[in-house]
Amino acid sequence: MAQIRHALTTKRADDFAAWYQEVISAADMAEESGVRGCMVIKPWGYGIWERLQRLLDDRIKETGHENAYFPLFIPLANFEREAEHVDGFAKEMAVVTHHRLIAGPDGGLIPDPEAKLEEPLVVRPTSETIIGDAMARWVQSWRDLPLKLNQWANVVRWEMRTRMFLRTAEFLWQEGHTAHETEAEAKEHTLRMLEVYRQCAEEDLALPVIAGEKPENERFPGAVETWSIEAMMQDGKALQAGTSHYLGTNFSRASGISFQNREGTETLAHTTSWGVSTRMIGGMIMAHGDDDGLRVPPRLAPWQVVILPMLRDNDEDAALIDYCEGLRATLAGQQVLGEKLRVLLDTKPGKAAAKRWDWVRKGAPVIVEVGGRDMQNGVVSMLRRDRLWDENSGKPAFETPTRESAGQTIPEILADMQAALLTEARDQREANITRGVASYDAVEKHFNSGAKYPGWVEVQWSKPTGAALDQVVERLKALKLTIRNVPTDGAPVDGACIFTGEPAVERILLARAY
Amino acid sequence: MAQIRHALTTKRADDFAAWYQEVISAADMAEESGVRGCMVIKPWGYGIWERLQRLLDDRIKETGHENAYFPLFIPLANFEREAEHVDGFAKEMAVVTHHRLIAGPDGGLIPDPEAKLEEPLVVRPTSETIIGDAMARWVQSWRDLPLKLNQWANVVRWEMRTRMFLRTAEFLWQEGHTAHETEAEAKEHTLRMLEVYRQCAEEDLALPVIAGEKPENERFPGAVETWSIEAMMQDGKALQAGTSHYLGTNFSRASGISFQNREGTETLAHTTSWGVSTRMIGGMIMAHGDDDGLRVPPRLAPWQVVILPMLRDNDEDAALIDYCEGLRATLAGQQVLGEKLRVLLDTKPGKAAAKRWDWVRKGAPVIVEVGGRDMQNGVVSMLRRDRLWDENSGKPAFETPTRESAGQTIPEILADMQAALLTEARDQREANITRGVASYDAVEKHFNSGAKYPGWVEVQWSKPTGAALDQVVERLKALKLTIRNVPTDGAPVDGACIFTGEPAVERILLARAY
Repeated sequence: MAQIRHALTTKRADDFAAWYQEVISAADMAEESGVRGCMVIKPWGYGIWERLQRLLDDRIKETGHENAYFPLFIPLANFEREAEHVDGFAKEMAVVTHHRLIAGPDGGLIPDPEAKLEEPLVVRPTSETIIGDAMARWVQSWRDLPLKLNQWANVVRWEMRTRMFLRTAEFLWQEGHTAHETEAEAKEHTLRMLEVYRQCAEEDLALPVIAGEKPENERFPGAVETWSIEAMMQDGKALQAGTSHYLGTNFSRASGISFQNREGTETLAHTTSWGVSTRMIGGMIMAHGDDDGLRVPPRLAPWQVVILPMLRDNDEDAALIDYCEGLRATLAGQQVLGEKLRVLLDTKPGKAAAKRWDWVRKGAPVIVEVGGRDMQNGVVSMLRRDRLWDENSGKPAFETPTRESAGQTIPEILADMQAALLTEARDQREANITRGVASYDAVEKHFNSGAKYPGWVEVQWSKPTGAALDQVVERLKALKLTIRNVPTDGAPVDGACIFTGEPAVERILLARAY
Repeated sequence: MAQIRHALTTKRADDFAAWYQEVISAADMAEESGVRGCMVIKPWGYGIWERLQRLLDDRIKETGHENAYFPLFIPLANFEREAEHVDGFAKEMAVVTHHRLIAGPDGGLIPDPEAKLEEPLVVRPTSETIIGDAMARWVQSWRDLPLKLNQWANVVRWEMRTRMFLRTAEFLWQEGHTAHETEAEAKEHTLRMLEVYRQCAEEDLALPVIAGEKPENERFPGAVETWSIEAMMQDGKALQAGTSHYLGTNFSRASGISFQNREGTETLAHTTSWGVSTRMIGGMIMAHGDDDGLRVPPRLAPWQVVILPMLRDNDEDAALIDYCEGLRATLAGQQVLGEKLRVLLDTKPGKAAAKRWDWVRKGAPVIVEVGGRDMQNGVVSMLRRDRLWDENSGKPAFETPTRESAGQTIPEILADMQAALLTEARDQREANITRGVASYDAVEKHFNSGAKYPGWVEVQWSKPTGAALDQVVERLKALKLTIRNVPTDGAPVDGACIFTGEPAVERILLARAY
């Protein structure tokens, strides 16, 4: 087996964190902005986000939600109304205190002391409290319910340690907010949106996830129940890829979202909220990237096929571009995975080989190169991003179908790759979950074994609460572990709690996490 | 002619400002949020914005731009580099000074004095200075140019007097930013994007506009040239609906956007920027709304056709819904104005007549009502929003085509309405521009005539600059007039300047403005 010269310097197996940074840079997705904790999302990274937005937005609308937009700034008073909520967010809020700059004594700009706000404003870290205000105005009767809203927005949480896409001070997300007549309906809706997220993760991002309820200590501040989808990264760590919260009447009490019910009694609404953010892109990178860069699942790729004519700045270029345009037009007229196929004929200046490797690192699903000889033979040279290398020769695994056959098979290849990436990630995850670990000692041994990427373990517990739960959390912290969730599809419970020795009531996943 | 009972309380002719507020509320588009100067954009208003985004985004991508995302927060130092720019914006900037809240002495929340930022951050009022930083990193050689970026974002300008959609502290917009090798190319691009805006306004919003250059005193802070599209509202006032700026090398000098040119010399790039915002929605309201509420041009309408079955909570409802569903499916399968037709079958509870008037106020282009008798006769009752009333009877001008014929003619009606709204607005505008006003006295007389809605006048001037221009601006201010722009398609110049008496060099439009 020949040696392969991969397109990145860092290998996943050597230094996963450094590899992650290198992919983002090599795929030209994002970069540090110079503003503390804020990144610049570059066109390829933003293009992927736009695709995710479009696909998830369709799913959110299909389930009966309407988009709206609420203020960036939230008065302090809104936060004062829900104690747990403010406790959860107060430590990391960006606060606006002035509305004008003037020249300071040393010539630089300073906030004008004369333009101090009477009441400081918080840059939204999440919008329950401001959307709650609006819901209180809009909901009067049970006939106004359910109220199902969604917002695409930027939010700010002043995190101390940031990492691109995974944890940034400003990030982009959607936040859904709904109000319902009854607890049962609101709880059902919480799970329905969790299922929407699961489908989006698996069908759109090819990211297999485990849906389940978060333990008490991991709940959203102010929530009664928090549910999550958890994905495994290639280093075996967990990434919370989306959350859905049943908020009970906590926020409706705080904001006054009450209505006259069917019996004529004034009643508090039951609310939910749920969000997915640019963090999902980080999950996609760490689940699908390889030692040659990013691999974008076809449904999410801004360009699914990139055609590169090998231009030579001579008379033959026009004919070569024509030949490529023939393929481009054939492909552009086709549907794949329920949408119009997205194909780019890239005629920008630059050497074809250099451009090929740029597109490999960016993770375009199919790359088609066409040189003069290909044209003469009526063929194209085609690379499939998830089967990049011929392991025998150590060279890129080009196939050379006729141009006509490429036009027919590429849509199938894209659909196949979408499925293959999901399967690959699911197999990798399942191989790295150790189930039925029966004692805390065994957990300790598992994570102290020296394995670089020890994955997740599934254990049973008695669901302790309060101080007993705190103790469990502290013990896990020593192993750098957290409880990810209680999988909805867990096997039956049949043993003792590994923490308390009491009869277990549910299965939980333990993992190191992002 | 019978008396018509219009759906709004306020008539445009009586109190245009109050009418504007009433339309926004009656069409359920937006409302005050309780946060100073910030509005809540409700689903119908946001749906219209989403349509505008989609259509304009397509145009921006077609002209070779890529979307990206840059930080919300801008360090003060970025502003200090371009003096005119900071002068223009410093007075209205929201400034973040703290990153944490704590409980204050009286129990309420206060910014934590221990968590004061070393360097305050400004919430972006526009992004030239932060995108300039990125461009400086990305542009090295002439081969990196042109660099054509666009961002969809929220921005904040701390305006003292706000009005929904037209002037809010936070607003949504797109801002395009490009860098070019030469002055000629950058200037050409500035005008190309102005033309994109003109097309979007006229073809998508049915909003006729006059494109032209702004006078020196109305330039964007830091720009060399500012161009605008100006629309006339039904009260004869002007609305600047979009601007495109040629920034020369002012911002590239401030940010260090330089490149090695084709001759190998380090050179400053020439940059442009251009933006359109939620203000455009305000323009659409004031151009197309009538005494019954909003009229949304079909290209922009989230729902172009709304079908209302007259449900009676009895056994016949199912058959009625089936009958309506037949029409819905027929319409949904058709294309209109280059896109899939958007049709809603509205089966929400509520009286059909009340729902009809809700949709009239919201401005849905075609409203179809279907009762039991319609169904028996195989017809539907159809209202066209721009021809709402039968002036003889004073009643809504329902037509009753067969269901099949409605399925065929509604797409034509929508296309016709899109064109009719543009024609109507253009006729109204042309009737209210007085051209060739030859003296300042005549201008004064025109605007002091007591006419409630005096429209615009076109005059000739010698294009004074500096102090002489300031004098002109002051004189116009006394009449509450501003110079809108120098139309690109103005008639030849053939007289004297109405201000200086010198030979005129161009024609300008004078108007009261939003």
